[in-house]
Formats: sequence, structure tokens, C-alpha cells
Amino acid sequence: MAMEIMDSLSELRQQVYEANMELHRRGLVIYTFGNASGILRGEDLVAIKPSGVPYDALRPADLVVVKLDGTRVEGNMRPSSDLATHLVLYRAFPHIGGVAHTHSMYATAWAQAGREIPCLGTTHADYFHGPIPVTVPMPPGEIAGEYEHNTGGAIVRRFAKLNPEHFPAVLVSGHAPFCWGPNAEEAAQVAVIVEEIARMAYHTVTLNAAVEPISSALHDKHFLRKHGPNRYYGQP
Amino acid sequence: MAMEIMDSLSELRQQVYEANMELHRRGLVIYTFGNASGILRGEDLVAIKPSGVPYDALRPADLVVVKLDGTRVEGNMRPSSDLATHLVLYRAFPHIGGVAHTHSMYATAWAQAGREIPCLGTTHADYFHGPIPVTVPMPPGEIAGEYEHNTGGAIVRRFAKLNPEHFPAVLVSGHAPFCWGPNAEEAAQVAVIVEEIARMAYHTVTLNAAVEPISSALHDKHFLRKHGPNRYYGQP
Amino acid sequence: MAMEIMDSLSELRQQVYEANMELHRRGLVIYTFGNASGILRGEDLVAIKPSGVPYDALRPADLVVVKLDGTRVEGNMRPSSDLATHLVLYRAFPHIGGVAHTHSMYATAWAQAGREIPCLGTTHADYFHGPIPVTVPMPPGEIAGEYEHNTGGAIVRRFAKLNPEHFPAVLVSGHAPFCWGPNAEEAAQVAVIVEEIARMAYHTVTLNAAVEPISSALHDKHFLRKHGPNRYYGQP
Amino acid sequence: MAMEIMDSLSELRQQVYEANMELHRRGLVIYTFGNASGILRGEDLVAIKPSGVPYDALRPADLVVVKLDGTRVEGNMRPSSDLATHLVLYRAFPHIGGVAHTHSMYATAWAQAGREIPCLGTTHADYFHGPIPVTVPMPPGEIAGEYEHNTGGAIVRRFAKLNPEHFPAVLVSGHAPFCWGPNAEEAAQVAVIVEEIARMAYHTVTLNAAVEPISSALHDKHFLRKHGPNRYYGQP
Repeated sequence: MAMEIMDSLSELRQQVYEANMELHRRGLVIYTFGNASGILRGEDLVAIKPSGVPYDALRPADLVVVKLDGTRVEGNMRPSSDLATHLVLYRAFPHIGGVAHTHSMYATAWAQAGREIPCLGTTHADYFHGPIPVTVPMPPGEIAGEYEHNTGGAIVRRFAKLNPEHFPAVLVSGHAPFCWGPNAEEAAQVAVIVEEIARMAYHTVTLNAAVEPISSALHDKHFLRKHGPNRYYGQP
Repeated sequence: MAMEIMDSLSELRQQVYEANMELHRRGLVIYTFGNASGILRGEDLVAIKPSGVPYDALRPADLVVVKLDGTRVEGNMRPSSDLATHLVLYRAFPHIGGVAHTHSMYATAWAQAGREIPCLGTTHADYFHGPIPVTVPMPPGEIAGEYEHNTGGAIVRRFAKLNPEHFPAVLVSGHAPFCWGPNAEEAAQVAVIVEEIARMAYHTVTLNAAVEPISSALHDKHFLRKHGPNRYYGQP
Repeated sequence: MAMEIMDSLSELRQQVYEANMELHRRGLVIYTFGNASGILRGEDLVAIKPSGVPYDALRPADLVVVKLDGTRVEGNMRPSSDLATHLVLYRAFPHIGGVAHTHSMYATAWAQAGREIPCLGTTHADYFHGPIPVTVPMPPGEIAGEYEHNTGGAIVRRFAKLNPEHFPAVLVSGHAPFCWGPNAEEAAQVAVIVEEIARMAYHTVTLNAAVEPISSALHDKHFLRKHGPNRYYGQP
Repeated sequence: MAMEIMDSLSELRQQVYEANMELHRRGLVIYTFGNASGILRGEDLVAIKPSGVPYDALRPADLVVVKLDGTRVEGNMRPSSDLATHLVLYRAFPHIGGVAHTHSMYATAWAQAGREIPCLGTTHADYFHGPIPVTVPMPPGEIAGEYEHNTGGAIVRRFAKLNPEHFPAVLVSGHAPFCWGPNAEEAAQVAVIVEEIARMAYHTVTLNAAVEPISSALHDKHFLRKHGPNRYYGQP
């Protein structure tokens, strides 16, 4: 492996480690739940959390590096059992650089309820250009077969008409959210924000079951002040 | 700038910094959400959080100082994108010295539900002399135009018949609360208390959907034992 | 004052300080909310939190000591504005040695909803020999008059047929809980447990609106294994 | 007692201590609530938390060691008042090595509501091969008699057709969960996970009262990828 790839890979490993620890620090994962990964585009190398390792014990060296086809390149441990889902997402969504998966409380409740999260306020509109989508439940044959790979397929089908850069997360029906971003750390931040939005929406609909989504004027305003060529939120 | 103004400005900066950190410490804001500001009356200088800077990294020197018309006086960063809303409030409510804006969980749920918070107990009555008001949703033209400025306008319209000293916060419909007080630190404390009141009211109405507000006798008693000439709560 | 009274008073002061800090540590109170007191029976001296002092700044020396009629004996600050309620309880319930008052989230929600807390499980039965009672709302004349004193009166009326040793707390309608015990520290622990019971009951009735209280056989069993001559919980 | 038994017992004591502290660290127990135990199979010695001792003060030496018939072997304190329930479980379920009992918030709410927890998602399916069962309420005679022993009996009756290795916890109606595992530490982890599942299910059914359990295909897939001969989750 060339020296510069090794440097990039070492940086990727550190960033994926930090992303995993962010999930833990924010209380989105307990014990060995959840996982975050990142990809080195060009080389198509993916670093991901090993399976079944508790966060308290996780070190950057424990991460497993694989090719886009799943072949192991570095690391002695088994990768996360959800690896195949991550790989499908990296192949289907060429602009993403990181994926984070949690079973965070409120996002999982919406996924279990089989309901997309409607856009009820500007917090949501700041990050998603529409409702947070939920997948169609998978047929038994897909579950019995290459389950984790097919979970990725169910997500990709749900995005047939959606832009993954405008919708950086999905709820897998009866399961939990998968989130992404330009790199592993931003994917982990999306996971935190999806949980926050899901929790706000839960309390809103239990307070007012007949609540309507905000207007498209307000939705567009908030999404576009943070995204796209005319954004003015944050520092230039 | 005269020496004494510089001293006052340095003190303001410190107080606005503390107010922002109080929002963070109490769990009302995550990442770069929310913002607090304070004003130096007489000089009409406003210090506010810069846009998109995470609280963990925030230092007093990062605060941006502007005139009441928004012209930047000190600081290298862009001010909070909500600055224009703060400025409208400072101009319309001459007795306030600080403003705090958060997307705190329960206050935001009421704002998203489009419901004012009824006064269901003495905790609420200690701080507000009536329900916590909610604004009327803004028309598309106001959203597409000077949105943050017009958000301030929607708040001011809602206060046409309300005294902002007796109602130190408002819920912006489909958005979140704006809170104020005699200075930035008290504005931040109001933000904490509004969240507490919103959370109590949420649990009360989900426990008893038919609950009535407390009597005006009890409401007046609690509000007036903490406010006005005959107050007897706290130290003299 | 005799030396031994001074020693006892110093011990009382320390215990009341600890009780107040326990309320803070357990998240039952924010800022200056709530207060705990203790009494030196025989001398009839009561130590209580000063009014409007934040917990972070509270020191044992700040506590105010008064006689049972409210006359100040020690301390430079005003006592808690709820002092008169505490004094009524000490006079009416001769076996109690401490009182704790909070606006804790779930107990306050039940108080605001005007509902007594039914005994839905053994956690409740371990501490209360029946539902946690709620007072009748006070008439306007009692609110406008000696309000805090009359709040005590409303509690005492509610206990006309209840034994305060078997029911160590009450919900004041539209306000919040008052709790008591053999001393200030146990009163504070009751406040923690009342919040826990209120929170469990909230989640139970929102899960099953038609839930029935547990059987009197189970209720008696749990209450009596912790209280009375045949108790066998804890160390002898 | 032979040297090697003493060594094994010392190890058991340490593990049971850690299990109890895990319940405390994760916020499942307050004050003296709850208890965990472990068994040395072959010797049939059980180590358990003493009754009424707060977790902050608990040391490994405080644990009480008893035989399977309840006779005390080591320790000066009274064992947990729930000991008899633990002993019934160790006798009836020969493959378990640890038991943990808590009054954790959401699991207790389901127990108080008298509802089994349906399997609404993969988090649940990862640990239970069906709904989390609830016992039938005990008749008054069983409550008045050997109550804690009979609580164990009610659990065992509920498992007449269930495999305790595929269902590592039960909700005792009107009371709270009992959990188990191959040793005390895993039993405590099950208690943490049961609380997580109960909380997810609470938020799911309050979001969608008509929600259906996940398909048996998905349920089987998740349970079997973590359990049994073809498991592939975690490290080999």
C-alpha cells in the first residue's frame, strides 16, 4: 500500500473511531448497539466498527477495513454484522462519505410504528427537505436471504425519487435509522439530530394528533438558508 | 470608543457568553443550535453568539457586537442568523436587556403543535401573568422576504395587547421559543424555566386532556408574590 | 441558649442542608425552586432554606432558624416563602421531623391534573398505604389571605381521616407535592420516591387508561413488610 | 470449605457486586431498590445483595451467601427480601447463573399496566424469541403466605411452555421485571436491555396504538443471528 494511502487510511480510521464514540457520548447507543463507518473514495476502502465490541473498550486499531465488495483488508476482528447494508449505501449514493446506524430511542419508535416523520418545525426543515422517509417492510424471502445486503436494497428502493443529499437519513421499518453525510463524523451528527427531531415530533403529535406539517414556504426557507448556493447560516 | 464604554462592553460580552453557556449546560441546545444576546442600552450595542459555532468551542472573544441597525462593530465572524429577530425585539421592547432563543424539546413541541401553553399550576404563575403566547403563522411573503426580521415582527404583533415584562417569552409557531429578561443571564434562565413549564404542561394535558387552568386568584397570588411592589419572594 | 441545644441545632442545620442538597442532586429542583426543613422537637425550633437562594450557593450557615410561631431565632436572610406551610404541618402532625417541598416534574403534573395517584404497583405500596392524596382547590378568600398558612390548612383538612405516617406526602392541587418524614433527610428521600412513583404511574395510565389499582392483599403485604411491628425488609 | 471453592466464591462475590453496581450505574435502581444475585452451580451457593443497603455504600464483602434452601453460609447481614424468588428461579431454570431484579421505569410501567411487551422491532428480537411475558396476578392466599417464594412460583407457572433461555426476563404483574442470564453480569445487562426495549415499545404504542408485531421472519432472523448454532453476530 502506498504511503499516502496509509496516511489517508489512518486519518479515516481516527475519524470513524470518533464518529462511533460520538454515538456513545450522546447516549444513542448502549453496550454493543449501533455502528459508524467511513469510506476513502477513490481507493474504495471502508473502515467500520467491529461486531459486538462495547464502546468503552473500542480503540481505533480495532476498526476493520474492507473493500467495497466486503473483502477484509485490515483488522483481526469481524466487522459489524450490518456492514453489507453500509456497503450497499456507499455504492448507491456516490456522494456520501460516512454512515451511522443506531437504535436511538425516538427514531426507533417511529421506525417501529412504521410512520415517516412529518416536518413539523424548522429544526426538521434545517436538515431534511421533506419528511424523514420509512422503508417498506421487507418480504420474507429477502429477510431469509442476504438480510443485511437486502436491507440496503430496501433503503435504495425507497430513495428511487429522493436525493440522499437532501434526505440524510431513513427509518428502516420495524428496525431503526440509518444516517449518512459527507464523512463519518457528520453522519454521526445526523444521527444525533435525527433523534432530536424524532423526539420533538413524538411530543408534538401526542400533544396535537391533528397537527399539520409546516408550510412549504417555511420548509424551503429553512432548508435553503443552510444548504445550496444561497446558504447564509454559519461562517463563510 | 471611550474607556468606560469599552469596560461596559467587556462586561456585556462576558455576560452574554455566560448566558450562551447556561443554555448549553442545561441541555437546551446541541451542537450550534440556539443563541443568546445582550444589549448595552444608551450605547445601543448588542453582543450575540456567532453563527454556526459549537458551544464547546465558544469563547467570549468570538461574540459579535453590532449596532441596533445590525452594523458590525466588533468581531470577525458572522453573527447568529437570528440576529435580526433579536434586534426587532430590542427596538420594540425598550425594557428588556437580553434575549435567548433555543429549540428546547418541550417548548418546541408546543410551538410545533401551534398551541399556547395554558397556566396549569403555580410554577407557571410564578413567571407569566397568563398563558405563554404563540404567534400566528407567518404568510409566505414574509417568509420569502426578510424572514428573520419578519419573525420579530410576528412576535411584536402578538404582543400588541401584552406586556413583555409580564410575559417574558413567546412560542414562534412551527419554530421554537424566544425568551427575554432584564439582561442576557436572566433571559437564559427564562429559557430554562419555559422548558420546565412546557414539560410540566405536556405531562399534565396528556394525563388529563380536560384539565382547566388554575383560578385567576391563585395565578395572581403567585405572580404578584414574585413581581411588583408587594413582592415578598426572595431576599429584599 | 444552652450548649446542648446549640449542638443539636448545629446538627439539625447540617441535616437540613443535606436534605436540600439531596433535592438538588436528584434533579428535583432547579435554580431556587423547592425547600426542605427540619424541626428540633422539644425546643420547637425549625431550620429551613432561605428564600430565593440558588442551591449551588447554599451553605449550612445560610439556613434560617425560627420558632414554631415563625419568629426568627438565627440567620440573616428571609426564610423560604413557604415557611408558613411547613409550620402548620409541624404543629398538626406531631410525629414528623422534616418536610420537603419540590416542583418535581411528574408529581407536579399529577398535582396540576388534580388527580390523586392510584396505587398501581408494589413500588407505591412500599411507601404509601393507599393512593397519594390531592388537596381540594383552595377558595379565593384563602388564597388572597394568609396564602402559605392556608395551604397548610388545606393539607391538614385533607388528612382528617388519613394517618400522615402511612401517607408521607400530599399533592397540593394546581401546585406541587409536600413530603415529610421522621427527619429532613428522610423527607427529602420521600420527595425522590414520590417523583419515581408519579413517573411510573404516568407511564402506566398512558399505556393502559383502564388500569386498576393492585389488590388490597398485595398493597398490604408490601406496605407491612417495610412498616410496623412485623416488618422484615432491611437490616434489623 | 475447600480452597478452590473459596476462590470460586470470591470470584462469584466480585461478579455479583459488579452486577449490582451496573444496575445502579445505568440508573435502573435508586436508594436500596433492586438486587442481583449469582449462583455457583455444583456447590449450589448463591451470593446476593443484602436487604436495604444503598448502592453507594455497598462493598463486595457485604454480599450474603446462602445455600439453595436459603440457609446462610457467609455474611452478617440479612439477604435481600426477594431472595426466595431468586432461589425458586435457580431451582426451576437449571441453565441460568444469575438473576437481576429492578423497578426500572418503563419495564415497571408495563408490569403495572399488566401488559406483555409485544415484539415491535429488531432490538427486541435480538434478545427475546417472542413477547416479554407477564405473570398472572397472584391470588390473595399466595400473597398472604410465603409471598416472595410464591412470586417465584408465579413466574415458573408462566414459563410452563416457554424456554427461559429464549426469554431471559418476565414482568411480574403489578410489580416489576425479573431478569436472568448465564451469570450475574449478563443478568444485569438483560435488565438494562429490557428497560430499553420497554421504553421503545412504550413510545411506539403511544405513537401508533394499532401497531402490529414485526413478522416472524424478521423476528427469527434477528434472534437467530445472535443465538444458536448459526449465530454470526459478535466475535467468534
